[in-house]
Formats: sequence, C-alpha cells, structure tokens
Amino acid sequence: MRIPEIIRVQSDRTPGSLASVLGVIADAGLLVEGLKAAARNHLHTIWEITLEPDESFDIEPLLDAINTLDTARVLGRSDRVFARHEGGKIRTVSTASIDSLEKLRDVYTPGVARVCKAIQDDPQTAHHYTARDHTVAIVTNGTAILGLGDIGAVAGLPVMEGKAALLEQMVGLSGAPILLDSKDPDRIIDTVLNIAPTFGAIQLEDIKAPECFNIEQTLIEKLDIPVLHDDQHGTAVVVLASLLSASCRLGLDLKGATIGQIGLGAAGLGICKLLIDFGCCAVGADLREEAQQRLISLGGEPVALDDLMRRADVVIATTGVKGLIKPVMVRKGQAIFALSNPEPEIEPMRALAAGAGFAVDGRVVNNVLGFPGLFKGALDAGATRFTHKMLIAAAQALSELGGEETLTPDPLDRAVHVHVARAVADAATRDGVATRALTVSRAV
Amino acid sequence: MRIPEIIRVQSDRTPGSLASVLGVIADAGLLVEGLKAAARNHLHTIWEITLEPDESFDIEPLLDAINTLDTARVLGRSDRVFARHEGGKIRTVSTASIDSLEKLRDVYTPGVARVCKAIQDDPQTAHHYTARDHTVAIVTNGTAILGLGDIGAVAGLPVMEGKAALLEQMVGLSGAPILLDSKDPDRIIDTVLNIAPTFGAIQLEDIKAPECFNIEQTLIEKLDIPVLHDDQHGTAVVVLASLLSASCRLGLDLKGATIGQIGLGAAGLGICKLLIDFGCCAVGADLREEAQQRLISLGGEPVALDDLMRRADVVIATTGVKGLIKPVMVRKGQAIFALSNPEPEIEPMRALAAGAGFAVDGRVVNNVLGFPGLFKGALDAGATRFTHKMLIAAAQALSELGGEETLTPDPLDRAVHVHVARAVADAATRDGVATRALTVSRAV
Repeated sequence: MRIPEIIRVQSDRTPGSLASVLGVIADAGLLVEGLKAAARNHLHTIWEITLEPDESFDIEPLLDAINTLDTARVLGRSDRVFARHEGGKIRTVSTASIDSLEKLRDVYTPGVARVCKAIQDDPQTAHHYTARDHTVAIVTNGTAILGLGDIGAVAGLPVMEGKAALLEQMVGLSGAPILLDSKDPDRIIDTVLNIAPTFGAIQLEDIKAPECFNIEQTLIEKLDIPVLHDDQHGTAVVVLASLLSASCRLGLDLKGATIGQIGLGAAGLGICKLLIDFGCCAVGADLREEAQQRLISLGGEPVALDDLMRRADVVIATTGVKGLIKPVMVRKGQAIFALSNPEPEIEPMRALAAGAGFAVDGRVVNNVLGFPGLFKGALDAGATRFTHKMLIAAAQALSELGGEETLTPDPLDRAVHVHVARAVADAATRDGVATRALTVSRAV
Repeated sequence: MRIPEIIRVQSDRTPGSLASVLGVIADAGLLVEGLKAAARNHLHTIWEITLEPDESFDIEPLLDAINTLDTARVLGRSDRVFARHEGGKIRTVSTASIDSLEKLRDVYTPGVARVCKAIQDDPQTAHHYTARDHTVAIVTNGTAILGLGDIGAVAGLPVMEGKAALLEQMVGLSGAPILLDSKDPDRIIDTVLNIAPTFGAIQLEDIKAPECFNIEQTLIEKLDIPVLHDDQHGTAVVVLASLLSASCRLGLDLKGATIGQIGLGAAGLGICKLLIDFGCCAVGADLREEAQQRLISLGGEPVALDDLMRRADVVIATTGVKGLIKPVMVRKGQAIFALSNPEPEIEPMRALAAGAGFAVDGRVVNNVLGFPGLFKGALDAGATRFTHKMLIAAAQALSELGGEETLTPDPLDRAVHVHVARAVADAATRDGVATRALTVSRAV
C-alpha cells in the first residue's frame, strides 16, 4: 500500500537547485508523483513535492539527504491531504433558503402534512416530493478498506465521504455514508433491509470477501432498488472498458477470447462474472477452494497459474502479490493487465520485453469512472436492480470515450459520467428493469 | 389535523373586492392564515390565500361561494407546498470542488489512505477529519408522524427532510434521515446501534408511545453519543421556555409550583419529566394505566382530571381532544397551556373569560425552537448524552429571548439557535458530560 507524502522543500533561485533535489529523490528509489511551486520570492522557491513511498518506507533519511544539499532545504512535510479532510468532505444542505414564515410553514409544519398525506395515499408520489430517488446509501463495515484491510468502519469513513463527494460532483447524487458496527452477514443484511426505505439505491463498499457475495446477493433478492457491491462490479466495469479499448487496438475479438483471471477475491470474481456475461471464456487461478467453487458457479474454470498463463489471451491479475508473473510465463502477444496497486504482478515494461502484445498496470483502472454513472443511470431509469447488460453498457460507454493514449477517459470530465449514465439507463429500459420512462437525463 | 390549502383568487381592482372574498371565507368559519398578492395588472389582482381547514372540511362549496361574487373568481388551488417539495428538500454536497487531479488524489485514493490510517491509529482524529461530528441521524419508523399517526416511514420522509433542512439552515448541522421498516422495538434498537458509528448524534422522531420510551432509554444506555426523542424532550424544552416566560409575567415561582399535565403520551411525559427535573410538582391525568405508571416512575402523581384542575397552578394539555377543559373547571388565576393542534382543549379566550390568569394554545410552542440548538450545543461540547440540565439550559436561553408579545423568540432568527447551542454546551461542560473544551461555538 502506497501512502502519499508531500514534502515542502525550499530551493535557491539558481539553475540546477531543483534538479539536485530530484536527483536525491531518485537515488532513494522514489518516483515524483506531483510537483508544485507553492511560493517564490527573489531568493527562493518553495516546492510541494508529492511522493508515494510504500508504507514501510522511512522518509527521514531522504529528508536528511536533501538537507545536505547546498542549494535546498526541507521545510517540512505538508498536511495538505489532512487539510482537505478538516471537518469532513460532505455536508447535507437545504435545497432552499428557509428565510420566511411562509417557507417555514410550507416545508415544515403545517404544510409538510399535505405532502405526507399525498405519499400515504399514493406511495409513487415519494418519487417526486422527496430526495429518496437521488440518495445512495454508501454502506461499509470497514473490513476491506482500500488496500488497508480490516481497519474498522469509522477509519473507513473518509473513503465513504470521498465516494459521496464524487457522486455529487460528478452526477449530482446525494451519497449517505452508513458505517456498520458488525461483521455478521445476517446482521448486516437485516440492518440494510431495515433502513432501505430511505434510499434510492445501495452501494456496498469495502466489505471483505467472501461475506460480500452473500450479503450483496441477498439484498438484491429482497430489495426492489438497485444494490451494487462496488469492489466487485464497479471495478469490473472499468476493467472491461479498458479491455475493450485494448482489444480494439490489438485487433482481438474479446467475445470468445479466453481471459485468465489471477486472484479470485471480490474484484477478481466480479471481473470474471462480467467478462463471462460479456461472452468471454474465463479461467481463473486462486489457491482457495472456496474461491474456485465460486468461479465454477459463475461458469468459469479454475486452473493452475502456469496453465492459465499458457491458455489466456488476456491475463488480469488482482492478487496484491508483487512480481507473481515471471517474464518466462508470458505468452507471445498476450495482453496483460497486472492491476495490483502499488506493485503490479509484473511491470508492464518487463511484460512487453517478454513478448506481451500489450501490458498495463492498475493505473488505467480508476474506480471513479464507474460508480457515479452506474448509479445515476440506474436511478434515472428507476431500475429495480442492476443487470449485466447495464454494466456492459457502462463499460462500452467508457471505452467509446477512451483516448488514444489512455484506455479510459478523464474521470474528472462530468460529460463522461453523463454519457455512462445515459447508456446505463437505456440498457435498463431495454432490459425491462426500468420503471420510469426516460426523457432526458436529469440536469446534473 | 389541519392541512393547509392555498387558493388562488382573482379579484377586480375595485375597492371592496378583496373584502368580499374574505367575507365569504369568514362565513365558512375559516381563519385566513396567509394572504399574498401573487400578480396584478390594471384590471385584476391575483391573491394566494392560505387557509388551514380541518382534514374533514370540504373546500368545494367555499370555492363555489367565492365564484358567485361579481368582483372575484377562483383560479384554482395552489400547489406551492408541493412545488417546494419537488425533488426533495435536502442534498448532500461536497465541501470542495473536485476539479483537479491533485484534489481528486487528496480527497480520494491514494491520499485518503493517509487519513484512514491516522484514524485507525488514533480514533480521536475522526473528530477532525470526517463529517461525523456534525451529522445527526434523524430516525423514524413512521408510526406517529405529526398528527397523522401511523402513516409509514416513507410518508414521513418529508418531515425528516424538513428537520434536516432546518438543522442546516439554523445551525449548520447535517441531518441524515433514516427511515426504518420496522415496528419491533428490539429490531429498531439493533439497527440504530449498528449504524451509530456513522453519526455524531441520534434524533428519534415521530415513533409512537409507548415503544418510544424504551427505544430511547436503551439507546442512551448503550451509546456514548447524544440520543434524543424530539417529540418528548424537544417539545418539552419549548414548553418549559414558554412556562418560564409566562410565570415571569404572572409573578409565579415555577419551582415548587404544581403542574397539571393532561395527556401522558410522548409529549406529555416528556414535559412532566423536564418540569419535575426543574423542580415542579407534577400531577398528571391519563386514562391509561401504563401511562400513569410511567408518571409515577418519573416522580409524578396520577390524578383524575377534576382533581388535577383543582390542584394545578399551571395546566398543560396535550390530549388532542378538543374542548376537553370546560370553563367551569378553570380555577381563578390558573395558567392554561392548551397545546393540542389544531383544536385546543380550551380556547384561550374562553379560559380567560372563565378566570384563568393566563391562557395560550399550541401556537406558542414551535418545535423548531428546540432541536437545532440542542443538537448543535451537544455536538459542540462533544457531549456523551443529553442531561436534564442541558435541556433546562436550552429552555432558559429561549425564555430569555422571548419578547413581550410572544413567550418564545422568532424561530427563523439564527442568533436564537446559536444562543441556545451555547447554553446547552456550557451546561454539558458544567454537568461533566462534555468531552471537548469549548472555545467559541463553531461558525454556523
């Protein structure tokens, strides 16, 4: 797990002073992930340098080494990331200013009683007169937060707030983090069922495998609103989008191709399911018997790693094991997606040198590209659930917008998310799970 | 239950045309609650007239009667209240614009991992780097929504959104409606306990008696964040504030006075509890044995209605029974708070005519005055629970700001809520339940 570290360095205004600093960083074996001139005067420039050392990396010797330079010194470590979290990242606000007695009496008692009665008489009116249809519960129990593992629900709250902030910024939905104080699947299911009337959709997040599978499946069966475990399916959508873009370049017909999935956790099985639904053959490698059984139930075939590498046209790895794929295992022309962050199963450069036709690491799969458009599209259509056609439509929409250099489009471009949402909503309609006629996508 | 009805009437621009319309409304026995010129030209004025007929009132004959006038005609019934509910009344938003890769990587992966790890290492940091401490769950199961009764949780959502909108508008807190699909107290308690890590405080709303008592008590015992059933205690705070203002005018020492509470539901028992805590003697009348037992457990004395009217210096009625208090029962000089809406237990005019020293109806007790400042103060202090001293401090703060004409201050004045919040936070500190040193109240 790489954790960003931003250091503040003051360099003299002499040619080469910054280069010296970067040289020291290079000697420490670190990439520069970001560099910004935070301030300057006639004598000095203050640089904010973003590094992403591994958790175990001790940064102090690096800072000492910079301080030995004649033309630069370390001012300190920046708390920019923390500053951006101060007080939390989301707020719930009133859509209107309540500044007159008339408004107060319309939006609260006595006026609100009219709306309550209207919903009591016809529950469908809740779609119009409440925020439910644009509110997504973001539910976690904190057992699989990022690559950090089981750190507890409260420590996972910044991730849930980040998802909520992105839902609003990208597609105008309201995200409501819900932290669960339980690891018991039955209790998790019961709690989500009990609070479900509040929400238009449920986004399950960072709940560890294998519990996540049954939790999601049961909620899908028992609820008539869309439920999606983002780690499985949101990620799978972005992977499929990258695969579609890559196969287009390689001249590979993805339908009918053999996909080798290494690692059958939540993400790996989500990817297998979506690719099988898309029309691929999937073979998968994982030492866990239980994971192999799940793959079989999805229609895939568990195999040994060597066998997988021999058979697969496209290899996808989500194991978290650095260097798992040896160059000698790479088949000529194979496409390799070594997705583990921060250390891929094989460096793309080495894979290409070993004969791969195509190779990328996890940086191409940005989860932000998936969930906002998926939920916006499902809610716009009033979909009762996510179908695999909706997921595939999202992947295709993303792939259509991928550039020449990048397999997937810019995650900060709101038009991308609108495009995905429309594709998802249209697929929901075609698939018979929509309950609302689509006119135009609601304003974002 | 009175439900507002807004009619749109076009009157000629001739003197007396509006008076004629109002005369017809008066003949129908209705008060005009609001009147606004919505549009005018050289020939006509269009009026929006707000009426609050009883649920059973048939408005069509009234509209027909207006249409018989020469100088006016009804254009229709306004949907202003519904328009103000279109799409719901709240939104969750990002506190910052996420418009650059740097920001995205700070507030989401990889940056967010630093904050998650910091909270994992020291859970106290969650107070600084998440929205939890300004987020209040507004929890209902829809069994006692306003005066409408058990209409279901979804039909109650507009009320919960109204509360959330007011929390933001008045004191800058984020309210999160949570609708529960259950009437089983054990399941309600379990669900709230399970989602509690998400929130800084829990506001229980419109859950019917007697279940509400045990639900609240159990949650208070099991959680270390403030839990408040607003129908009991929020209302009681505003009632005590009115009583303090009234007793000041009457020269009555409320401490030691005998309070007669008629109706021992959620509101009635909440009022008794707070007044006993304040130092009053409470006698209460309710036909239900179970309610009488609860009053005894609070330190009050159940009595018959006639006995209550004889003994009480201050009579408070929350029965929902129109005209329950007969003029002959009123003791000379008694203060009477006949709080049932829309029809009080005795009209203030009749109570005064019968010898009451003071008499008001439910309009003086606006619940909006209570909950925003109560929650803001408790959260500012990091209070682990609400104590009766905090509730009394809120009532005293409200009473201090009550004007000469009104017993309580303007609910739309944010300074009022800030004043209440400070009083509550100070009381929490004095009472030993604060976990944060108070500097200045956070900016609203």
